[in-house]
Amino acid sequence: MIRLLGIDPGLRFMGWGLIEVDGNRLRHVADGVIATVGTDSVPERLKALHAGLNRLFDAYAPAEAAVEETYVNRSGSSTLKLGYARGVALLAPALAGIAVAEYGAMEVKRAVVGTGAASKEQVEVMVRRLLPGADIKRADAADALAVAICHAHHRASRLRVAAGTRMA
Amino acid sequence: MIRLLGIDPGLRFMGWGLIEVDGNRLRHVADGVIATVGTDSVPERLKALHAGLNRLFDAYAPAEAAVEETYVNRSGSSTLKLGYARGVALLAPALAGIAVAEYGAMEVKRAVVGTGAASKEQVEVMVRRLLPGADIKRADAADALAVAICHAHHRASRLRVAAGTRMA
Repeated sequence: MIRLLGIDPGLRFMGWGLIEVDGNRLRHVADGVIATVGTDSVPERLKALHAGLNRLFDAYAPAEAAVEETYVNRSGSSTLKLGYARGVALLAPALAGIAVAEYGAMEVKRAVVGTGAASKEQVEVMVRRLLPGADIKRADAADALAVAICHAHHRASRLRVAAGTRMA
Repeated sequence: MIRLLGIDPGLRFMGWGLIEVDGNRLRHVADGVIATVGTDSVPERLKALHAGLNRLFDAYAPAEAAVEETYVNRSGSSTLKLGYARGVALLAPALAGIAVAEYGAMEVKRAVVGTGAASKEQVEVMVRRLLPGADIKRADAADALAVAICHAHHRASRLRVAAGTRMA
């Protein structure tokens, strides 16, 4: 059994979702959003995101983390802001000694829905189906859980490949 | 007398420059570049930048830091990478309790050369003239010193304004 933390980075809201993986079985542990205050300075907001992630590491002790590579088809300044938040989402686990994987939006959709062309709504529906009983209130948190599920699938295939290699 | 750290962020090379300010006098303390390995993972590279900045804080104890708001007229993916590096450049001082200021490229040029339309070369020439005796080898380090000089000027005007207010 292993705990995985998915992160959907954003400067205003950073979605997070924790799942437990036991073989092929997934279990929802917790999810939420780390929010920052728009009128605070950027350094203060990055500090708040960093502190929020560290509180999650302390509270839930995830073994690995996964971050979504979000789209970049936006304005330069909003891409830069997304970059700040993603930078913190990649740095904080690395500083805490937690391995971080990155997945593209299409990989996440493929892992959760079965097709990279799935809509955001289809992803949310499947996340709720794969994690029954979870009361997921926020879209950012559902996205973060989707990244965690994607990581669980990719980990499992990597482990199968590794096991196959050992047996050959 | 106060020590200011200027940072010119980049994921591959993060330029830095330290100056001492005593009233209107500027003195060069040190400069350099924190380099990361292009083949390392992004989390590892961000960790290296973060560790490099923390070594500077320990070695030189700057009272304040300043970061340049770099241009965003580039591709989405390179803007995102710049965002990661700038995120670390803003977060690391904040975590260490060092106030961080941000300046646009035009403000830096205006403070150093006297016009926001100055070329990169003019900025470098003026940085060397304002900090005589400094052997600045790298352009990234010269840019970082320019941000530090810009911060020194803005600090001085803020202090004059504050002093004026107190006297009124």
